[in-house]
Amino acid sequence: MTDISVGMLGCGTVGTGVLTLLKRGAKQIAESLNVHFKVKKIAVKHPDKKRDTELTENMQFTGQIENVINDPSIQIIIEVMGTLNEAYDAIYQAISNGKSVITANKELIALKGPQLTRLAHEKHVDLYYEASVGGGIPILRVLSDSLITDQITGLTGIVNGTSNYVLSAMKNDHNSYEESLKQAQELGYAETNPVNDIEGFDAAYKLAILSQLAFGQTINLKQLNRKGIGQITTEDIKGASRLGLTIKPIVIAREKHHELYTLVGPVAVSRQYPLATVNGVENSILVTSTALGTTSYTGPGAGSEPTANSVMSDLLTVTHHLLLDESGTSFNIPVNHIKEHSLLDLPLKYFVAINETTVDKLESFINHSEYIENVVRINHSYFLITSSLVKGKKAELVAFFNKETKGSRFYPLLK
Amino acid sequence: MTDISVGMLGCGTVGTGVLTLLKRGAKQIAESLNVHFKVKKIAVKHPDKKRDTELTENMQFTGQIENVINDPSIQIIIEVMGTLNEAYDAIYQAISNGKSVITANKELIALKGPQLTRLAHEKHVDLYYEASVGGGIPILRVLSDSLITDQITGLTGIVNGTSNYVLSAMKNDHNSYEESLKQAQELGYAETNPVNDIEGFDAAYKLAILSQLAFGQTINLKQLNRKGIGQITTEDIKGASRLGLTIKPIVIAREKHHELYTLVGPVAVSRQYPLATVNGVENSILVTSTALGTTSYTGPGAGSEPTANSVMSDLLTVTHHLLLDESGTSFNIPVNHIKEHSLLDLPLKYFVAINETTVDKLESFINHSEYIENVVRINHSYFLITSSLVKGKKAELVAFFNKETKGSRFYPLLK
Repeated sequence: MTDISVGMLGCGTVGTGVLTLLKRGAKQIAESLNVHFKVKKIAVKHPDKKRDTELTENMQFTGQIENVINDPSIQIIIEVMGTLNEAYDAIYQAISNGKSVITANKELIALKGPQLTRLAHEKHVDLYYEASVGGGIPILRVLSDSLITDQITGLTGIVNGTSNYVLSAMKNDHNSYEESLKQAQELGYAETNPVNDIEGFDAAYKLAILSQLAFGQTINLKQLNRKGIGQITTEDIKGASRLGLTIKPIVIAREKHHELYTLVGPVAVSRQYPLATVNGVENSILVTSTALGTTSYTGPGAGSEPTANSVMSDLLTVTHHLLLDESGTSFNIPVNHIKEHSLLDLPLKYFVAINETTVDKLESFINHSEYIENVVRINHSYFLITSSLVKGKKAELVAFFNKETKGSRFYPLLK
Repeated sequence: MTDISVGMLGCGTVGTGVLTLLKRGAKQIAESLNVHFKVKKIAVKHPDKKRDTELTENMQFTGQIENVINDPSIQIIIEVMGTLNEAYDAIYQAISNGKSVITANKELIALKGPQLTRLAHEKHVDLYYEASVGGGIPILRVLSDSLITDQITGLTGIVNGTSNYVLSAMKNDHNSYEESLKQAQELGYAETNPVNDIEGFDAAYKLAILSQLAFGQTINLKQLNRKGIGQITTEDIKGASRLGLTIKPIVIAREKHHELYTLVGPVAVSRQYPLATVNGVENSILVTSTALGTTSYTGPGAGSEPTANSVMSDLLTVTHHLLLDESGTSFNIPVNHIKEHSLLDLPLKYFVAINETTVDKLESFINHSEYIENVVRINHSYFLITSSLVKGKKAELVAFFNKETKGSRFYPLLK
């Protein structure tokens, strides 16, 4: 039996999940791998807080991250504290100290993943982060393993459970945005300050990580076309539904002619589209590649044990490498520098929601336009499906509706 | 650059796909792994047949399997010929000769997988077979990797594309079973003799392989509750549809109180059930486990390149092990000997299709039965949804309908 000493940074929801799974799986791990994991030290804000003694038996809690990352007896660090700069410094130091690292920190990997991966290579240690995207779905493993011989050409996914919960509740329970968000907060699916989830930042980080693995390129988050879900009204959802569409919080990255087209925001999808039935806090990612065609991976996008299970997968991979003296690999990241665009630069169909308007002018326009495929009117609002529009033509339509109506919202549409 | 010599047994659809992906990925493989795959010899029935010379440059075709498996310069054997006894003998010999083996042969692995895996362990070579289930979906990898720390409690899937294509066509195009099967044959989705797919043998093999990885137990195919799709009428599909149900070709394995409950056959699923929208030749597998909850994996269940891509994943894993002198692993198979039952031994809801009948007696029965939750009548046929029935109660209902009607069909129902 080999003892592997582990240090943990943070002990919140995910950290507690990891301790639970380590305890529950100890016998099985011992039998299959002949390994015993010993969590020696855990760095937390309040080391004196009362904790579940069964889970934390023989573990030392400390207020100092340095006590963990500089302990020469600790071989693997699990980072589940979820800050940016503090986590970066800690992981940088841990890797420099020759420790392999597992993290669930999406912001960190989205912004600093490639640097930290390079450092880990140099230091011959591992850096894994399956838990950072898609909760318990083993999506990074799949992308990383498929990459060498297959060529990924597109990713489309629902990766933020909070936004998906809110939009699902608006559609299925006919609640307002505010009511749905409040419900999500009460259930623990949304934070008190929900801006990170609702405005698409969290989804953008996850898209960046997926793109690193799928296209060898982290996306430029400052230039990314990112929209939140705060502007979506129950009327838009109703109008979409009447046209056979559902509005979903989507991330997209597509490679076309060796350039990358990306988007984070609400998208109208048809009822047949695979993501249409992904409801509540569930996540789902569609991967399109040359050999495989489209495959999809669906599961719980958050939660203590699902996310912790991804950490456990990484822990077993890292341990396997340690035992074979084969550390220094990581998820397989190719390196690319291709041009980035907004997905809206490509020809796309749109679902358009139009507020109260002068009926005559609009009706005449709609009846004579070759770009409108379907239309439904609910009270004073109009809801349209356009044909596929190039960028310039869409701008013309936006300008026309801005002039002739009290406001319009354009949602990209996926069939 | 390391040369890896490969021998192939068979060169049909999947074999040609493998050669295509090897050629297409050669540069990428060389750059990432510093490896060059050299397919030296391919055993086929007709070695003199004309073949694509670009794909088969410098490869030697032979009519003798022995020429390939006994060639001491060949390190890895890819078996894609798809027979049972011949393949078993060849793979047994190849492993005994110290070669690692990759196979797409589901019948072989379902029936002889555990023996061959043991032999591979003894001889310190690898045996991988991702392509045997779910075409391009990396489902075996996912099961094998999740197993060590998570506990799988249930598998439900659509794993036979032919049956799913036929039932999808019956439902969506309102064609008869015969017309739909003919269409599938014309499109190359069904063989001239379709019995293997239509009668559920193929699905049963795949369930056995999935169970080996998920539960450590290959299922007893002789005792398995297996039903084909040949008895399903368009009326049943219509009646199901009126009750919000879709009939799908399903495989199920569930662990309950340390016993295994299995089923292969048509099952009625509700519109909300994740497999309801899996159409045509697509495959999808739902995995339920203690930590993760339910995750699902969906993609092309057959086809040259998707299946070949799974062979390529295995080839890269096996090569990685070869280079590190770490061969002798395989998919992680636990060993269990738990009791097997038919899923129908558990309490289940049923969708029941009843042919022409004496209306009075049936109506009175239905109106007074506490076991009927919903009913719809189309012409002279009745379609029912029962409440959850224990085995004895179901037998009573079957007996009653057998006596009072011109025939009934019971389909297990999943919500």
